[in-house]
Amino acid sequence: MPAPHRTSLPIADVQIADEFWSPRRETVRARTIPHQERRLREGGQFDALLLKPRSHDDDDRERFPIFWESDVAKWIEAASYVLASEEDPALDAAVDEAIALLAGAQQPDGYLNNYFTAVKPGKRFTDLRDAHELYCAGHLIEAGVAHYEATGKTSLLDIVRRYVDLIWLEFSPGGPCEGGYDGHQEIELALVKAYRATRERRYLELALLLTENRGKAPFYFDAEAERRGDPGYFGGKGAIVRSSQRDREYNQSHAPVREQTAAVGHSVRAMYQYSAMADLALELDDAGLREACERLWDDLVTTKLYITGGIGSDPSIEGFGKPFDLPDHTGYAETCAAIGLMFWAHRMMILTGEAKYVDVLERALYNGVLSGASADGTKYFYGNPLASDGTVERSDWFDCACCPPNLARLLASLEHYVYVADTEGLWVNLYVAGSARFAHGGQRVTVTQESGYPWDGTIAFTITEAQAPLAMTLRLRLPEWATGAPVISVDGTVLPYTTDSGYAILDRTWALGDRVELTLPMAPTLVRADARVTSAAGKVAIQRGPIVHCVEEVDNAAPVPHLVIARNGDLRTEHADGQDSIVAEGLVDRPAEGGLYRSLSPTAEPTAIRTVPYYAWANRGKGTMAVWVREAP
Amino acid sequence: MPAPHRTSLPIADVQIADEFWSPRRETVRARTIPHQERRLREGGQFDALLLKPRSHDDDDRERFPIFWESDVAKWIEAASYVLASEEDPALDAAVDEAIALLAGAQQPDGYLNNYFTAVKPGKRFTDLRDAHELYCAGHLIEAGVAHYEATGKTSLLDIVRRYVDLIWLEFSPGGPCEGGYDGHQEIELALVKAYRATRERRYLELALLLTENRGKAPFYFDAEAERRGDPGYFGGKGAIVRSSQRDREYNQSHAPVREQTAAVGHSVRAMYQYSAMADLALELDDAGLREACERLWDDLVTTKLYITGGIGSDPSIEGFGKPFDLPDHTGYAETCAAIGLMFWAHRMMILTGEAKYVDVLERALYNGVLSGASADGTKYFYGNPLASDGTVERSDWFDCACCPPNLARLLASLEHYVYVADTEGLWVNLYVAGSARFAHGGQRVTVTQESGYPWDGTIAFTITEAQAPLAMTLRLRLPEWATGAPVISVDGTVLPYTTDSGYAILDRTWALGDRVELTLPMAPTLVRADARVTSAAGKVAIQRGPIVHCVEEVDNAAPVPHLVIARNGDLRTEHADGQDSIVAEGLVDRPAEGGLYRSLSPTAEPTAIRTVPYYAWANRGKGTMAVWVREAP
Repeated sequence: MPAPHRTSLPIADVQIADEFWSPRRETVRARTIPHQERRLREGGQFDALLLKPRSHDDDDRERFPIFWESDVAKWIEAASYVLASEEDPALDAAVDEAIALLAGAQQPDGYLNNYFTAVKPGKRFTDLRDAHELYCAGHLIEAGVAHYEATGKTSLLDIVRRYVDLIWLEFSPGGPCEGGYDGHQEIELALVKAYRATRERRYLELALLLTENRGKAPFYFDAEAERRGDPGYFGGKGAIVRSSQRDREYNQSHAPVREQTAAVGHSVRAMYQYSAMADLALELDDAGLREACERLWDDLVTTKLYITGGIGSDPSIEGFGKPFDLPDHTGYAETCAAIGLMFWAHRMMILTGEAKYVDVLERALYNGVLSGASADGTKYFYGNPLASDGTVERSDWFDCACCPPNLARLLASLEHYVYVADTEGLWVNLYVAGSARFAHGGQRVTVTQESGYPWDGTIAFTITEAQAPLAMTLRLRLPEWATGAPVISVDGTVLPYTTDSGYAILDRTWALGDRVELTLPMAPTLVRADARVTSAAGKVAIQRGPIVHCVEEVDNAAPVPHLVIARNGDLRTEHADGQDSIVAEGLVDRPAEGGLYRSLSPTAEPTAIRTVPYYAWANRGKGTMAVWVREAP
Repeated sequence: MPAPHRTSLPIADVQIADEFWSPRRETVRARTIPHQERRLREGGQFDALLLKPRSHDDDDRERFPIFWESDVAKWIEAASYVLASEEDPALDAAVDEAIALLAGAQQPDGYLNNYFTAVKPGKRFTDLRDAHELYCAGHLIEAGVAHYEATGKTSLLDIVRRYVDLIWLEFSPGGPCEGGYDGHQEIELALVKAYRATRERRYLELALLLTENRGKAPFYFDAEAERRGDPGYFGGKGAIVRSSQRDREYNQSHAPVREQTAAVGHSVRAMYQYSAMADLALELDDAGLREACERLWDDLVTTKLYITGGIGSDPSIEGFGKPFDLPDHTGYAETCAAIGLMFWAHRMMILTGEAKYVDVLERALYNGVLSGASADGTKYFYGNPLASDGTVERSDWFDCACCPPNLARLLASLEHYVYVADTEGLWVNLYVAGSARFAHGGQRVTVTQESGYPWDGTIAFTITEAQAPLAMTLRLRLPEWATGAPVISVDGTVLPYTTDSGYAILDRTWALGDRVELTLPMAPTLVRADARVTSAAGKVAIQRGPIVHCVEEVDNAAPVPHLVIARNGDLRTEHADGQDSIVAEGLVDRPAEGGLYRSLSPTAEPTAIRTVPYYAWANRGKGTMAVWVREAP
């Protein structure tokens, strides 16, 4: 019997009215998306679509970058998610204006890329490794699908479908790019979205083709460079050199994707590729792709995942380091990579029905993703280090290109991650107040969720719409962080329940007004890392529920490196100003004065050590910070 | 009254017969230098001097590197130091053969560089920033001086003098390279050596000119690139771009040298520049250069010096990181940079008469320099990290280019660093058994040193040659690591003494046979770092005398990250197999089993923690290691 096909609910069918998330989403709507639009207008991305001819002397990479369509596309995508959940005629009109510009920039044969039309005509599809052409195409496709699903308009979807038709001709057998694939993965998962929106099977076939071409011998990017006869967009050392193994790992082309066993290289590229592999495994019931995804997942979560859900510890490649190489001060943990991990984790849950993927998704969302923006939504981290020597702070969003728009489109589409539906009923993955409306057994059903999450482990679900007795399975994720057995009651009566793959299974006949209460024990705990994580050796982190905490100097009696948490001391939770703080027993272990090296002993005295949620750090000026704090042995 | 002019003693006048150093110097003589010669023959460096014409297609940087003269020169220099202290006709003949090849390669106008003669004729002195032309010239000059001083032969010195005459014409006012200077400092200190050997004043002037040109506006390396019209030897991104501030800091051309205040950029380049500045300050009595040296020194030793004497914590530039940025696992601490620090420290002591410079010289010598070679002298570290996750090991010396020859020339010329003489008498900087012979007050004097250093803090000096009553000041360095007041006795009677600038001053009339005994208290101690050194926060190192210790897994009950040293516990010294080991009271704090993150507590149990000298680590297979070990608060 094939597994029931699980799907996310459309944005319009999920309502989010949540004390934690709604203000953040409102910031995206009211501030980030308009800001992003102004930037596209002032920065030249809109004007570039007018394709004013330029001389070759204008080929200045700083002035005419190759990524500009993706900036426009990410903005349209985020705006579309907003339009899916509320009316906003001005935003709708601005999106239509951008789409008209894209329509004007599209070439008669369907091609749509400013750089290779206006700056380097005749060079299209000759530098797949570095020039981000298919990456931009992928973002345009995602935008087209999001816009169509939000507004019902096909204006952008039609444009991207014509572009995909051209790409199909280029890359299909016998085409000029036969055997090729993109240097920055993105189009593959976008094509699966386009397939799901249109049921055009060729999109799925193209996604599979690009995925399976990757990493096969002979190595396409070397052959491409030889044909092209120059070092390409990023130049290199002025000569065409064959790629090294490390070069190939950078964009995950070191081996055919089905044979890949370890998460390597640029983390965002990796996440987008693995997401597409999971999508294809689901759509094509492809066991080989599923097994590859499971192997890669195990490698990542057992050796390369920060406790914050951040990934990619090596700034030099914006990517993965060696196993257990998770430095705290210098680790990169790019916001976009943590968002990419959410994309993949969500797809893995849909593919397998296992809650362990959502545990990681939730870890990333509440920690390493959310830390990417300041409390007021105006400053951003690209990298999200787990410790600061007092010099780290977020940057104005104007300086950033990829992370703020990615965070905007994620928060604007948070609906996708809360629930999953299948023929048996509803799966609740995230605890976010609001409601889910879906069809089940021929009736429209609405389940309302009430929650003070992530501060309160009690969540209530009520059947607020049902036309008749409702035989339905409600699955509630039991997070791995729960510090005791979760308790479930229905209408006030504690209910025994079975579990499967990390979900409590409530298989009942429900009636309108039935109320389920889930209580997740949420005591603060000390967490230790595998001893091979040298930045965490002899140290502890504090976690309560999904929230990983950190210690900031501003709340404490000494710089963070001088603080020591007692091994078996009390941890007290205080809630104020909309967030938890944990107070731990500990010591100030104050170094003696002296030069760079000295033999005098530190002096230790008791102190209370106070935390804040990691996502909330760096909002009150600069100072030392650490997630991993020394523990008294 | 001008200060008495201090000088090192010639190698031939210093004898080293020391249990610690003599076997290591014998390894250099019997193994490293012959090995180096074979490598020069097999690797093509000798053949390249035949200047066989090559086509432009042969311009393969991997096959015809630009540094080859410096490899030959460093070998000649090290061999010359050996020849200065003992007869070795075979080695003498091999050196003569190499010099004959250099003579043949020298152009009629004095020019001597294989790459710009055989591979890129017509391009000489057009890529000073990257092509290492003056760097190679500097090593040839150092070799020429060492060879002359060791053998009395002028064969190589004459060659390099003709080459310097050409360089003078190029760089002096009105010459084609007016305003220029080298991208890798080295020739400046070499020119001062040539001046001291020949008293040719122009060499000093050229050294000063190159030093003072550095960092002045307009920026020479940008002008050079524009004149040349191509990106130069190392290419870059295929375009001529103006250097960034960071590019300029890399080779210390970011500001005129007199205005530099912080040690930045590539560490070896920095050390060679600062060494030349100290030389010029001494020779020219130049207060501005001296003050710049003192500022740079303070910056380095208070914020950028590893406890091992290593410097340069950023592998990406082989150079300095930010203040207190001294990571243990990933720190670079190149062997050559620590050797360069010795060069500079030695010159600073000669310039100032202050022992604090020798304290740092000694720290580097016994720790971060000596760690560069394996116990048997066949394997080498380029970088000398202060901690290992179990994957670090030395490489075969064949893979290395700069560090093994640099270590060879240092150990073969260790004589230079032991004593300094001035008109008042003898300064003892290092405690190395042997003797010093020098002229004082018209007589030949020999002082014999007996020592079990660095394991034993008692050192004896005997006047073993003197023709008459000898009014002479003997200065003995009192190391900053001494753990109590040093005691000095003469012929068995404890002697009160005054101190100045870190030296005990023994100003007496000596007689043949007088014996001075110095006892330096040498208890093992726990050392802590400034808390801003995050890799050492909450940790201690163990030091005894000049020897910094480390903890290796092979000697202990658990991987090093699990070990915790007691704050006030006993430290016991054991001496076996020619070296100390310190045994410290502590704990094994063993993590619970579990995944990457878990809440179970570690279990702590008492253990004895055993060290080895840092220089001796990685001689017994791979395993975890750390200099900085957790300390129980």
